[in-house]
Amino acid sequence: MVLICDGLGDRPVAALRGASPLERAIRPNMNHFAGRGACGIMDIIAPGVRPGSDTAHLALLGFDPYKVYTGRGPFEAMGVGMEVRPGDVAFRCNFSTVNDKMEILDRRAGRIKDGTVELARALDNWEFEGVKVFFKEGTEHRGVLLLRAQGLSPLVSDPDPHEEGVRPHECVPKAPEAALTARVVNAFVKRSYEILRQHQVNRARAKAGLKPANIILPRGAGIMPHLPSFQERFGMKTAAIAGVALVKGICRVAGMELLDVSGATGGLDTDMNAKMEAALKALDGHDLVLVNIKAADLCGHDGDFKGKVKVAARIDKALGVLRKGLPEDVHFALTADHSTPCCAKDHTGDPVPLMLSGPNVRTDNVKSFGERACALGGLGRLRGTDLLPVLLDLSGRVEKFGA
Amino acid sequence: MVLICDGLGDRPVAALRGASPLERAIRPNMNHFAGRGACGIMDIIAPGVRPGSDTAHLALLGFDPYKVYTGRGPFEAMGVGMEVRPGDVAFRCNFSTVNDKMEILDRRAGRIKDGTVELARALDNWEFEGVKVFFKEGTEHRGVLLLRAQGLSPLVSDPDPHEEGVRPHECVPKAPEAALTARVVNAFVKRSYEILRQHQVNRARAKAGLKPANIILPRGAGIMPHLPSFQERFGMKTAAIAGVALVKGICRVAGMELLDVSGATGGLDTDMNAKMEAALKALDGHDLVLVNIKAADLCGHDGDFKGKVKVAARIDKALGVLRKGLPEDVHFALTADHSTPCCAKDHTGDPVPLMLSGPNVRTDNVKSFGERACALGGLGRLRGTDLLPVLLDLSGRVEKFGA
Repeated sequence: MVLICDGLGDRPVAALRGASPLERAIRPNMNHFAGRGACGIMDIIAPGVRPGSDTAHLALLGFDPYKVYTGRGPFEAMGVGMEVRPGDVAFRCNFSTVNDKMEILDRRAGRIKDGTVELARALDNWEFEGVKVFFKEGTEHRGVLLLRAQGLSPLVSDPDPHEEGVRPHECVPKAPEAALTARVVNAFVKRSYEILRQHQVNRARAKAGLKPANIILPRGAGIMPHLPSFQERFGMKTAAIAGVALVKGICRVAGMELLDVSGATGGLDTDMNAKMEAALKALDGHDLVLVNIKAADLCGHDGDFKGKVKVAARIDKALGVLRKGLPEDVHFALTADHSTPCCAKDHTGDPVPLMLSGPNVRTDNVKSFGERACALGGLGRLRGTDLLPVLLDLSGRVEKFGA
Repeated sequence: MVLICDGLGDRPVAALRGASPLERAIRPNMNHFAGRGACGIMDIIAPGVRPGSDTAHLALLGFDPYKVYTGRGPFEAMGVGMEVRPGDVAFRCNFSTVNDKMEILDRRAGRIKDGTVELARALDNWEFEGVKVFFKEGTEHRGVLLLRAQGLSPLVSDPDPHEEGVRPHECVPKAPEAALTARVVNAFVKRSYEILRQHQVNRARAKAGLKPANIILPRGAGIMPHLPSFQERFGMKTAAIAGVALVKGICRVAGMELLDVSGATGGLDTDMNAKMEAALKALDGHDLVLVNIKAADLCGHDGDFKGKVKVAARIDKALGVLRKGLPEDVHFALTADHSTPCCAKDHTGDPVPLMLSGPNVRTDNVKSFGERACALGGLGRLRGTDLLPVLLDLSGRVEKFGA
């Protein structure tokens, strides 16, 4: 059982008398587990490296993100809830504004907030030279372009020139095998202008004195790698419970069964108890169950340290379900996928606390689950990619390397 | 602000009742910073790997020395104060003694001590087939040959046969593109014999019954890599204060501005206070200031543990300048580039103590700056290449990896 408290790690907060939100939270259940298990800290990617939720979960699932994460596009696509398959090439995109000469006036279309659902729908589900083309809006001016066919390549240049006052660049293949991909991207950009310029959302924006979102500018092509599933790697049946599309997507790509839990929203209002109960139930029939609780990360991004203290306490309460119900022979890892300090309002490279409990764990003297207490624990300082091997070893699931 | 106390790390000294020189030194300022910050130990390259000053500083500046350090030649050249540019090929050399049949009698020319400046000058600043050829003496029988031109390659064999009683080997290209380099090296070795055999320094040595240093034997070709500057890597302006040529050279190659400080010699008599004051001043206009103080390393090489205790106390006194003047929002790292234990009289692979202070640092319980105290700190055990990412992350200067 792996419980990932998304973004739970933090830094000392002056207004909390130098404690972190986690350290300040009332957390008898976390401390109970810390007292029974072994603690440490974990650099999810490497010391000082700021993980995204995607690279972090890849690492925690045992993949080297530097090897499998070749471009953000496919993971952005997952993040907005698109289905992504191995071989798909995806791009991060902006809704942008160009004038009649096709010169870019605003790369973010006046930071457009409303209407992108309709605009995206007008571009979605197209086909060009046998390539299926999907487009979906993200938050604000962001969107994702996804191409699906045999023989695509991410080795193409960005149409987005990354500056304003110039025309979009032509998408150029950087290798012969990327010629088709470049042609499709160029056709898509052209088509986005033709369709969006006269779209009713943009006519309404013009009337309201807002910049039209009249072109899509793709960048950062990436191909979805084929990740071997847990079944292939270890012969294991695994399940994941998560509210957020990006985390769900990565777990799905890693071959985990996604369990729907009613009330699990990925928001602050998520029903944590329901998630824990579902996770307990899922132990029956699965070798590994992963639960992601997003709420602490949201508070971190908002800089809401008081809210984060409360969320940590709520997670702790929900942990009571595991404290009561977790069978004694189950290994349990309590950790975070990265730190999202309230002072930074974003992910940082600070290590996260880690607690391991269960049979055969070498216990230590740490009795409190917090960033600084865990740093003095018996597990020392690990990497995110170490977690899965350690759990597999403790539970006798890995082959010997050598004789 | 990064303060590198060169070679400060040590091992327990029986005559210091089992303390290390650092642990024995009176060091209120180091302990002050330890009490306010977070401590740990750091394997500069990897556990048990003995770093040179060059590989150590490369790691601390964020470069993987296994990738950028392809041969010692270019860094030896820096070490003797030569200017080295990307693409230059350099060789470590010995002043050696051959007889009339060109058989090597002594690879170290009787461990020659005096006169190598004059001998080197006679070989320096030559040109052959459009390749500029520089030569400079090092300590005792050592020297450096540096070639500068377009299209050189380090893929050549060693003229130095690494044994006596045989003739120097012909320098052979190991790849077609190294043919020019090999021709120049062979011409240089031949010329070194022609010029040195009749040099007045050698005539004087013959009279004194000393072996003549009548040929130069190059080995260990290496090409100077292009290292991206801090400006290119992170958009940062950086400065370095160091007395030693090798460290200065590496900082310059990494794109750091070298600041001259009057009284900063790189020796035991260096004016440490002047360095600290210059470093404080340099914070204005630079994102990162690195200071190297060499003195502790010199004591380590001499096996002078009493002197090393005194040097540590002198560094501590100079640290008072930073304790008073360091702005609260500046991150400060206090560490060493390697251990130079007095018992070993050379660099060893022992980890070095590390202290980080400044905003957002997760403080720990360590109140003393020493090898063993820091090993129990909240930073745990890091690598040398981790230091820069951790500092950049703490100060909000790195991009997120992923979404």
